[in-house]
Amino acid sequence: MELEGPRLRAGMVGGGQGADIGKTHRFGLRLDDRYSLEAGVFGRDAGQSARIAGSLGIAPGRSYAGYEEMAEAEAERPDGIDVVVVATPNDSHFPIAKAFLEKGIAVVCEKPLTGDSASAAELVRIAAENNTILAVPHCYSAYPMVREAARMIRDGALGRITFVDVEHASGWAATPLELTGHKQASWRTNPDIAGFPSVVADLGTHAYHLARYITGLEAEELAGQLHTFVPGRQVFDNATISLRFDGGVPGRIWASMAATGHNHGLRIRIFGDAGSLEWQHEDPHHLSVQDLDGSTTILTHGLSTLSDDAARLTRVGLGHPEGFLEAFANFYLDLADELAARRDGRESTVRELSFPTGIDGLLGVQFVEAVAASHANNGAWTVPSGAISQEV
Amino acid sequence: MELEGPRLRAGMVGGGQGADIGKTHRFGLRLDDRYSLEAGVFGRDAGQSARIAGSLGIAPGRSYAGYEEMAEAEAERPDGIDVVVVATPNDSHFPIAKAFLEKGIAVVCEKPLTGDSASAAELVRIAAENNTILAVPHCYSAYPMVREAARMIRDGALGRITFVDVEHASGWAATPLELTGHKQASWRTNPDIAGFPSVVADLGTHAYHLARYITGLEAEELAGQLHTFVPGRQVFDNATISLRFDGGVPGRIWASMAATGHNHGLRIRIFGDAGSLEWQHEDPHHLSVQDLDGSTTILTHGLSTLSDDAARLTRVGLGHPEGFLEAFANFYLDLADELAARRDGRESTVRELSFPTGIDGLLGVQFVEAVAASHANNGAWTVPSGAISQEV
Amino acid sequence: MELEGPRLRAGMVGGGQGADIGKTHRFGLRLDDRYSLEAGVFGRDAGQSARIAGSLGIAPGRSYAGYEEMAEAEAERPDGIDVVVVATPNDSHFPIAKAFLEKGIAVVCEKPLTGDSASAAELVRIAAENNTILAVPHCYSAYPMVREAARMIRDGALGRITFVDVEHASGWAATPLELTGHKQASWRTNPDIAGFPSVVADLGTHAYHLARYITGLEAEELAGQLHTFVPGRQVFDNATISLRFDGGVPGRIWASMAATGHNHGLRIRIFGDAGSLEWQHEDPHHLSVQDLDGSTTILTHGLSTLSDDAARLTRVGLGHPEGFLEAFANFYLDLADELAARRDGRESTVRELSFPTGIDGLLGVQFVEAVAASHANNGAWTVPSGAISQEV
Amino acid sequence: MELEGPRLRAGMVGGGQGADIGKTHRFGLRLDDRYSLEAGVFGRDAGQSARIAGSLGIAPGRSYAGYEEMAEAEAERPDGIDVVVVATPNDSHFPIAKAFLEKGIAVVCEKPLTGDSASAAELVRIAAENNTILAVPHCYSAYPMVREAARMIRDGALGRITFVDVEHASGWAATPLELTGHKQASWRTNPDIAGFPSVVADLGTHAYHLARYITGLEAEELAGQLHTFVPGRQVFDNATISLRFDGGVPGRIWASMAATGHNHGLRIRIFGDAGSLEWQHEDPHHLSVQDLDGSTTILTHGLSTLSDDAARLTRVGLGHPEGFLEAFANFYLDLADELAARRDGRESTVRELSFPTGIDGLLGVQFVEAVAASHANNGAWTVPSGAISQEV
Repeated sequence: MELEGPRLRAGMVGGGQGADIGKTHRFGLRLDDRYSLEAGVFGRDAGQSARIAGSLGIAPGRSYAGYEEMAEAEAERPDGIDVVVVATPNDSHFPIAKAFLEKGIAVVCEKPLTGDSASAAELVRIAAENNTILAVPHCYSAYPMVREAARMIRDGALGRITFVDVEHASGWAATPLELTGHKQASWRTNPDIAGFPSVVADLGTHAYHLARYITGLEAEELAGQLHTFVPGRQVFDNATISLRFDGGVPGRIWASMAATGHNHGLRIRIFGDAGSLEWQHEDPHHLSVQDLDGSTTILTHGLSTLSDDAARLTRVGLGHPEGFLEAFANFYLDLADELAARRDGRESTVRELSFPTGIDGLLGVQFVEAVAASHANNGAWTVPSGAISQEV
Repeated sequence: MELEGPRLRAGMVGGGQGADIGKTHRFGLRLDDRYSLEAGVFGRDAGQSARIAGSLGIAPGRSYAGYEEMAEAEAERPDGIDVVVVATPNDSHFPIAKAFLEKGIAVVCEKPLTGDSASAAELVRIAAENNTILAVPHCYSAYPMVREAARMIRDGALGRITFVDVEHASGWAATPLELTGHKQASWRTNPDIAGFPSVVADLGTHAYHLARYITGLEAEELAGQLHTFVPGRQVFDNATISLRFDGGVPGRIWASMAATGHNHGLRIRIFGDAGSLEWQHEDPHHLSVQDLDGSTTILTHGLSTLSDDAARLTRVGLGHPEGFLEAFANFYLDLADELAARRDGRESTVRELSFPTGIDGLLGVQFVEAVAASHANNGAWTVPSGAISQEV
Repeated sequence: MELEGPRLRAGMVGGGQGADIGKTHRFGLRLDDRYSLEAGVFGRDAGQSARIAGSLGIAPGRSYAGYEEMAEAEAERPDGIDVVVVATPNDSHFPIAKAFLEKGIAVVCEKPLTGDSASAAELVRIAAENNTILAVPHCYSAYPMVREAARMIRDGALGRITFVDVEHASGWAATPLELTGHKQASWRTNPDIAGFPSVVADLGTHAYHLARYITGLEAEELAGQLHTFVPGRQVFDNATISLRFDGGVPGRIWASMAATGHNHGLRIRIFGDAGSLEWQHEDPHHLSVQDLDGSTTILTHGLSTLSDDAARLTRVGLGHPEGFLEAFANFYLDLADELAARRDGRESTVRELSFPTGIDGLLGVQFVEAVAASHANNGAWTVPSGAISQEV
Repeated sequence: MELEGPRLRAGMVGGGQGADIGKTHRFGLRLDDRYSLEAGVFGRDAGQSARIAGSLGIAPGRSYAGYEEMAEAEAERPDGIDVVVVATPNDSHFPIAKAFLEKGIAVVCEKPLTGDSASAAELVRIAAENNTILAVPHCYSAYPMVREAARMIRDGALGRITFVDVEHASGWAATPLELTGHKQASWRTNPDIAGFPSVVADLGTHAYHLARYITGLEAEELAGQLHTFVPGRQVFDNATISLRFDGGVPGRIWASMAATGHNHGLRIRIFGDAGSLEWQHEDPHHLSVQDLDGSTTILTHGLSTLSDDAARLTRVGLGHPEGFLEAFANFYLDLADELAARRDGRESTVRELSFPTGIDGLLGVQFVEAVAASHANNGAWTVPSGAISQEV
């Protein structure tokens, strides 16, 4: 996969100290080595921003003090960035995205795009006028099994769609976290920043996009109720919404940040007159499909029978969950700590539960030999060369 | 996470065209930006190796024709590599690892380390003599919830361990794949390359390491049976093994490459006199714990109650599965294709099921507005500004 | 359990040939031996009704031609029935229930009690006036784990209730079954018999009762939408309902007979400010409880830690699913067929897959002996007296 | 189902006060109304036995002081029992079963049939000589989905069987229960009563029978290890067994009474060269089937596509779990308590969480009406006749 594609130059605005979403974008940019991060503004404190830029390998001349300056300068460089990631709080999305789009630089902007639909439409218009791309990372639609679900429906596997049920019901703010100084809780419960229907903007829009993406249907009409489960909270933290999709297909969305005990809670079920399917984000590599008889079939990414839409986004072998690459990264992370400690003459970082070493490799080989020896002896009990393993 | 650690220089031997494991290592090296890949030999065909090196961003002078030359040259450079990844077929592990270790360069070598325990012990000895690191990527031990399991047992949460049950039973070679020209099946069923107890070396060693890692126990004795499920196959494709761990704790390992229908099949259960736990690779972000009464509690990575061993390896928020970062990467992959196409004047790559754009962002904002309007009107049916969305 | 309680005399109206619900009631009456079925009217065809009564062991004099006659006669007998089960189609519930209640005989009447709330209220009034019992078999509330859920909420384990979500979404009529002559589909899609909101009466009322039962909350207000998924169907086969329970607690009910692929589909989730719980009818002996941290604990009937409300309704040991008694009954059913065949001189009914016999018992004992012998011989391979097993 | 079969006369030896297994047999005998319990000996205390017989509806003349007398007398009666259930401790199985078999009375005897294979073979011989039936309630083989599994394998759906894996690993005796006076624990850990390999006799034989039943294969050879997990326990409480079934098919059995945290723990997986399947007792109405590609299909009892072997043993509709009948029985149990209390002039038994009444039925009808009214008003909020419901 990584051998084929040309590389792009990326920049970032926001995503500085403590900004999880900025990190997540960088993980995503990095994995396939299709982007190099070459410019950025990482916060309002110029010194700290420069320090972060440096730690990310960005050349000093491309660590900017502000986004206007960055848009200007990058647009003029022959090797300027192809795309900028906007990972700032919601209320600054509009001017930043606008500045880059007007220079013809593609923009990846977190949702909600802006605080009102007039300004959002304006951004869409600017992107079109400047013939560039404005993208929004509703990343749930990028899972292989979500693509498979969408493909199945496009191909008629479920027949005529009859019902759509989505929920993005998390329990992350089921307590008054905002009173404890929790950063994300504070701004997400501040109506001036997040808006009164905060949970709809934050989670409901994901559920809504996922429903549209998988079914290919648009909403004609909706009816919604908003609730505040945590007393004293200044925004709505729960919403239940009825929808009528194209042609009157009924649907429901439940969005919550106060569904006590739920970890993530994004789940979608689609019903048609020939079958139904279900996908849950907490088990992203599986897709359940039910037929008219009532049998359930569980598909998983990597199956040879899946569509190209799913297959092209699968980096690991059948049965390896998404996440396997992170386990590899974890191995290399532990190793990096130790290698760097040795290189720099610091104390070893190897703790009780660390990365496997050659001893583990040796014990593995002894294990194989002992099994073979036992088998050759009709399953007799055999000692796996314990003596050697103690010496080394 | 990525802001803190110093960066290392990495090299690779093997992992060229069509080598999945090489790609997996590069994904792992890349994710946290703690390594830069700066040197390598990517196969025996010098031209192709050089081409791959180039596509990976390696400078021409550090794309080598052979591993001896590479070890020699990198050891002499002031900016030589800190670590080399050996991702070649099993039978070449020994000389390659040896060459780098003797130069004091750390080695990450795939399992099985070597074909026999004498040579494996030799590598361990060489690493120690040269005061460098030999690491083996049994990466299953790097999952947060595996670390949590190991921590729980170290902390006595299960009491005295009474039984250990592990299986790594895959169905990937339940048919005579080797007769179809399948590359991996061909060498894994060739006794000259993979050894007769092929499945034990390939999968059994992972199960064995996981049992040792989680329990902290070593095997004193074992008794094994080997089977060939696929008629005509020249290696054993299934193994059942009884073990006696330290102090006589009984255990079982089942390793299979012919467990029909299984996708991956790595699963471990540990029993103690105060509780038990279970972890499965196909659901890696959960850990089941059972108490003496018989209640089951399901823990997930990201919970605030987990140990530091688990927490430090978790990159995403509670409820986001490992794999979420790959969904982000998929988004950026689709986007990269399109950005590159536009930059290079090629036809658009946007297909039916592609990345979300500003239109999706706009529809999301309209959705939020419509929900708020409906709510303000006691849940009345409301049209989400359909007209605007059609225009843009 | 069965040793303690006094026995009651029961009668039945309806539940004749082909009436599944009548059978289900008889299974329920029979299991604990607390009732004897002593009188009945099993359909409008007097001959057939009498034949069924006979096969159920009812004395000829208590097999009646009509329900009025039965109510009259049983009320006058000193050994008359204590309770009557009304298992007729919905539209006859009212007069039948009325006839028995007015004689002071307790009535078990299937839901919906009647076709309109005025007549339902009338029945409630008559029962009260005659100081007798009118019961409705919303049997889902009788599962041990549902009782446990209700008890937990009464005891405050979930704190203040914030949200209630129930669905009874089955796929049994996802196709136009009524066109195929399917009996139940025919009357349930006939608006004259089942009413237009058929699915609400049939399944929605179960969901509604379960929500009320578990939470102890009553609905103050609701808003509903009805849909017809199967074209041409004359009743609504899907309903989505928003509710406001006592004090404004929001809730949702989804009832469907056309949720393609679903088998049964009754599921409830309750959220409070201190935790949440989930119960599904397709896995009735488990209850999931989630805490504020996000851990999930799975409880099962038979656990020593459960409340008395749950414990008193559990007939089997920990880990034995509800249904274990049916497996026992299946064993005895196969055996009855064979015993009767032998007694009556008919051909053996023993088929390939039938009940275990003494041979199986013998093989079991040989198995135990062989395991003990192998163990005594350090796990050596041992033949389990194969010769003997062949002889017998 | 219950209308078709002739009725049999049954007797019981054992199953008196506190004997759970006797109760379980009576539940099984009773469910389909194919048996009437007409004679018995319910313990060694004659008075108590008579009292139990009375409470079970047995005529005084057929409550016996001993099994010899019972066998004698019943054999001579023209209306004597057709079958006797032996539910006594293991060490008395042989003489009791023998006494009835010699009179030509069929015997249902709990496993292990006897304490050694010679006496077990003797019972088999006696049954054959007397042309009667000796049956052993390995009831797990009577579940519809187990029958389906066996049928699938007979019909070749899995191809050639390659591997059999069974476990019956319970945690019920993971602590030294026998020291607390726990009755079952006391005798099951007494080597004089239960034998040293107690867990093999108790649970291993179920696993062994299930493997034989589903696959149709017999064991040629086995190798076993026995362990004692609970210190000081006088019998083995854990066993791991390797098997070679017909033609060398490998298999494993794990039996445990000390698998901490497990509730029941019976689970079987069968692999063939064309597919595999899995069944677990804790989810008895489902069967998982995996194909060569790696897709998993979940079947459930009641599906129209199942074999007759499964269908004939299913009493409830699709999606209703086994256990639904017990929920019905629970409803009737609560009701019986209240009816009897009223009849006998005792205080009402209705507690907080009891059976649904006419009020619940009325509220259900009001619910249906309110939904219909709301729908007719485009989903407007509607009060479900609260006033009426408060009055009644």
